[in-house]
Amino acid sequence: MTLPRRLRMSGAMARKIITGYSNPTIKFVRSLRDKKHRRREERFLAEGLRLLTDAREGGRLPEILLMASGRDEHPLLSDLEQAVVESGGDVIEVPTDILAKVTGKDNPQAVAGVYAEWDTGLSTIDRKAAPIWLVVQAMRDPGNLGTMLRTADAVGAGGLILLDDCADPFSVEAVRASMGAIFTQRLAQARWAEFQEWLRQGEGQLVAASLRDAQPYRGAPYAAPCFVMVGNESRGLPEEYEMACDLRVTMPMKGRADSLNAAVAGAVLAYEVLATLEG
Amino acid sequence: MTLPRRLRMSGAMARKIITGYSNPTIKFVRSLRDKKHRRREERFLAEGLRLLTDAREGGRLPEILLMASGRDEHPLLSDLEQAVVESGGDVIEVPTDILAKVTGKDNPQAVAGVYAEWDTGLSTIDRKAAPIWLVVQAMRDPGNLGTMLRTADAVGAGGLILLDDCADPFSVEAVRASMGAIFTQRLAQARWAEFQEWLRQGEGQLVAASLRDAQPYRGAPYAAPCFVMVGNESRGLPEEYEMACDLRVTMPMKGRADSLNAAVAGAVLAYEVLATLEG
Repeated sequence: MTLPRRLRMSGAMARKIITGYSNPTIKFVRSLRDKKHRRREERFLAEGLRLLTDAREGGRLPEILLMASGRDEHPLLSDLEQAVVESGGDVIEVPTDILAKVTGKDNPQAVAGVYAEWDTGLSTIDRKAAPIWLVVQAMRDPGNLGTMLRTADAVGAGGLILLDDCADPFSVEAVRASMGAIFTQRLAQARWAEFQEWLRQGEGQLVAASLRDAQPYRGAPYAAPCFVMVGNESRGLPEEYEMACDLRVTMPMKGRADSLNAAVAGAVLAYEVLATLEG
Repeated sequence: MTLPRRLRMSGAMARKIITGYSNPTIKFVRSLRDKKHRRREERFLAEGLRLLTDAREGGRLPEILLMASGRDEHPLLSDLEQAVVESGGDVIEVPTDILAKVTGKDNPQAVAGVYAEWDTGLSTIDRKAAPIWLVVQAMRDPGNLGTMLRTADAVGAGGLILLDDCADPFSVEAVRASMGAIFTQRLAQARWAEFQEWLRQGEGQLVAASLRDAQPYRGAPYAAPCFVMVGNESRGLPEEYEMACDLRVTMPMKGRADSLNAAVAGAVLAYEVLATLEG
C-alpha cells in the first residue's frame, strides 16, 4: 500500500471530499496503523486538533490533513488547513465514520494528519539543550512510551532516548499517549553499545532506579545533563546496564511488590531530579 | 452463562482435564472478560502464579484454578492447588491454547484463577489503617486503575477509592496492571457525595493536584491520613471537587502541556506525601 501518485504529487490543491472507505488514500492512511507499513512508508498518524496544533508549533505539518465532515469550525483548524495547503499538502474531508475506522477510535477526534517520520539518530541530540533526558530500555508498551514523552515534556527534559527493542514511538497508541510531546521532544533510538559510546563522549550522568548498591532517590547528587533510565516493563534493566550507571538510586517500596510501573518509576525519579537541579 | 451446577457444587475433587473450548466451564471463565458477565456473576479472572500467590497470601483463593497442561512444576503452584482443593474449589487442567483464549493473551501465564468479588463499600475502609489513601475520580482506563493500585502498594497506602464512573477494577486489564495489588490493597467504590460525607465523619486530609489557588507540591503540609485524589484522564477533577479539598498542590509543568498522565500524577504526588510523612 503506497500513497497514490496523484496525491503525492499534488501541489496546488482544493479540499477533496472522500466518502468511500475503499478509496486508495483512505486505505493508505489506515495502513499506517500497522507497524510494517509505517516502517516502509516512514509516515505515521496523529489525531486531534490539539496534537496537530502542537505539531505545527513544533515545526511539523501533515502531508495529508483529514477532517471530519461534521466537525465544528475552529480558527486553529482553519489556520492549520491553510498552512497545509501552502506547504503543498492535501486536505481531505471524510465522513466521521471513516475517520473512526482510520484512527481505530470509536469517538474519533474531528481531525487527523499523516506526518513524515524524522531522523532519530543519537547525533540529532544536543545534550546541553536540556538538564534532563529520559532513557528507556526495551520498553514494550506504546502507551508507556507515550507517557514517558509526556512526562519528559512536563519536567522540561530535552527528549526521550529509546534503547534496544522498544515499542514503536510512532504507533497510534504512543502518539496518542504522548499528548503532543512526540512533536516537541527530541526522540532518539539506539542500541546500548552505541548509546554508551555516545554518552561518554561528553558530559552526562546516567541514573537508574536499582536495588543493587543503590542510595535513596531523595537527596542523591543528581547533575545536569542527567539521563534518567528505566528498563523493560517486566524484566527491568539488565545488570550490566545498571552497573554502567553513574548513580543508582532506590525508591521506597512499602508494600509487597518490589517495582513500580515503568512509566511511573521514570516520572517519580524525573521529578526528583528536577527538584534537585532546581535547588 | 452461569457456572455449571456440577462444578459449583463439587466439594471433594480430583483434578479435571478439559480439552474442549466449548466446555461450559471454559465458556463461563471466558465470559468473565466481559464486564456485563462479571457484574452478574460477581466473579473475576486473575492470571499468573505470582498474582495468585499474592491473592492467597492476601487471604483469597480462587473458586476455579486453571492450569496449563504443559506448565513447569512449581512448589508454590502445588501448594496453591492443595489449598484450592481443601477449600472446596475446582482445579482444571487445560491445553495452553485454551488458556490463551480464556485470558485473551498470546503468551498466557501457566495458571489463572476465578475469584469471587468482594464488598467495596466505603464502610470496609478503616482510614486509620494507613497514612495514605489514593482516590480516583471517573478514571476510565483500566490500565491506569491497575497502575494506581500498584502505586498504592508501593507507597504503603491502605487502598484505592474509586469515585463516580470509573473503569471496572476487576477487569482483566486492571487486575493485570495492578500486579497483585488488587488482592492486597483495600478497594472502595462510591459516589462523590457519599465519599464526602464519609470522609468528613473522621480525620482525613483531601489533597489534589490543581491549578486553582494551589501551593507547590514540594513542602506542602501533608498530614495522615492523607487522601490523594486524581481525576479523569482528559477532564481532570471537577472544580467543585478541587475546591472541597483541604490542600491543592501544583507540580511543575516545564513544557507545553499543563497536565500529566493521571496515574503518573498520582504517583508523583503520593511519593511526595510519603516523603513528607516519613519526615
